Amino acid sequence: MRVEGSSETAAQPGALGSECVKRVLVTGASGFIGRHTLEPLLAAGAEVHAVSARDAPLDVPAGVRWHRADLLAHGAARELIRRLQPSHLLHLAWYARPGSNLTAGVNIDWVHASMRLLDAFGEAGGDRAVFAGSCAEYTWEPRTHCMEGATPTDPATLYGLAKHRLHTMAAELAPQMGVSLAWARIFFVYGPHEQHERLAAAVARALLRGEEVACSHGRQIRDFLYAPELGSALTALLRSDVTGPVNVASGAPVRVADLIDAIAAAAGRPELVRLGAKPAVRGEPDRLTAEVKRLREEVGWSSSVGLQEGAARTVGWWRRRL
Amino acid sequence: MRVEGSSETAAQPGALGSECVKRVLVTGASGFIGRHTLEPLLAAGAEVHAVSARDAPLDVPAGVRWHRADLLAHGAARELIRRLQPSHLLHLAWYARPGSNLTAGVNIDWVHASMRLLDAFGEAGGDRAVFAGSCAEYTWEPRTHCMEGATPTDPATLYGLAKHRLHTMAAELAPQMGVSLAWARIFFVYGPHEQHERLAAAVARALLRGEEVACSHGRQIRDFLYAPELGSALTALLRSDVTGPVNVASGAPVRVADLIDAIAAAAGRPELVRLGAKPAVRGEPDRLTAEVKRLREEVGWSSSVGLQEGAARTVGWWRRRL
Repeated sequence: MRVEGSSETAAQPGALGSECVKRVLVTGASGFIGRHTLEPLLAAGAEVHAVSARDAPLDVPAGVRWHRADLLAHGAARELIRRLQPSHLLHLAWYARPGSNLTAGVNIDWVHASMRLLDAFGEAGGDRAVFAGSCAEYTWEPRTHCMEGATPTDPATLYGLAKHRLHTMAAELAPQMGVSLAWARIFFVYGPHEQHERLAAAVARALLRGEEVACSHGRQIRDFLYAPELGSALTALLRSDVTGPVNVASGAPVRVADLIDAIAAAAGRPELVRLGAKPAVRGEPDRLTAEVKRLREEVGWSSSVGLQEGAARTVGWWRRRL
Repeated sequence: MRVEGSSETAAQPGALGSECVKRVLVTGASGFIGRHTLEPLLAAGAEVHAVSARDAPLDVPAGVRWHRADLLAHGAARELIRRLQPSHLLHLAWYARPGSNLTAGVNIDWVHASMRLLDAFGEAGGDRAVFAGSCAEYTWEPRTHCMEGATPTDPATLYGLAKHRLHTMAAELAPQMGVSLAWARIFFVYGPHEQHERLAAAVARALLRGEEVACSHGRQIRDFLYAPELGSALTALLRSDVTGPVNVASGAPVRVADLIDAIAAAAGRPELVRLGAKPAVRGEPDRLTAEVKRLREEVGWSSSVGLQEGAARTVGWWRRRL
């Protein structure tokens, strides 16, 4: 056990790994995905260190140790990791501003920052890492069922390309440094803490305010995962010894309109939804779904929160905050 | 002077820097641009170390020490630089395959590799670096006269974007590491050793074989620099203490057809040129020219080889090799 200082935690049932509690560093911890990982990691008995360029949100679970650092700054990752000596790393930090995240040049900076992070983690003796990849790494044919190792990686966006290049480089570096690396290909996610501009949040917030909401035709087929479930899936993946790309998704594809309808039903305002009032985004596939065999059989995790339940919880969360 | 071992060289007139001969590492030394820098660096009295993923070409000037390394491989740059302790670094290595160089994802890998290189150079106490940038970093409006610090950087290609992000990150890192960094924005280049698929080489080789050559309309205005001149311009820039972006170009814009005509005249086969037989590349500007005030006034270098002379020398070089 590589815990430094006096902050050791007694092993608990459900601890990370098989023998002992581990020290986990979560990057991007204040982000939409990151904040959903903190509870499951604590529940797994880990000593949880969170890093973000922002201050800790007010609702960070007790027990999480917050570190403020800009991982794009030279030396910041190395300094933090030397100090903390984490055994586990869950790397979620990235540029995520809705509207420009798929095309912004800073995606390239994050490739470099992420490689430095992995390098520092390996140098400090880290054992196990999970990095966030994306369904945007796969080819976006009109109908794509994404299967790790089989579906071509041919990204349509700079974001997807940057994640893909990072995966290629990181998968080569990790074993050289003795790091076991899994690459979580995350699909579509909705739930509490979502950026206001993104689909589910925008629909829920508009309907709760009694406003009409203009949507595309809604016939696109996608895999949506309820964000707190993503947090537990990533925790399960980190605790496993599965390496390489793993789709992290519900495995239950639905129409975009189904998600919108579920939110509208939970909000009690289906009459305010205007399907077809906006054009669909050009270049995005009609059908983009996830094969979740690796996640289910090798990692041993599967989704149990259905669309209606996830939508109801999401709307409830927004209702308390409007 | 940080020269290691027994290979010190006596200071000579024209040595790099003002006091003493320096040890220079040139990356991408086997490439089209790299090989034109070796003679001028030697002539400047430098101890010249060349690195490339390939073996030394047969015609490498005597005195150049050749190192084979793949700078994309983790640790390769650090190991080489620790061993050599160069005071100067001329970083030209990049992915340069004609046809795919503007769009290939490996451009992103080179950003990371270049940052690692700069980091290793700074850690080893390096003083002065010149990195190869590109006119592709600038916006490509239909008519763009590129001026450092004034013309927007809004790259139209992944290659341009990758160079631009590297510049941004490197310009931030270099002063933190005590490295003086100039960023050479290279425009259009022709001359000996050019890849066969590129314009001047393709035209010269076809005409010398007595074959027709299909060209676009040729009315695009560009800044062409004769490759051996680029080698001496980069050497002058490395020897200067100018930092930041510097256009490296002739300052004498011409029509693409002028270059083709000059090559055809030198080859004695103007009747084989078919201007307008091929469409122009979409998305490339009508006019893309370089302001060379910084190069001329701050670096003190200017072009003296005109298009006719450069074309004649280029054709002569190919004639001896067909």
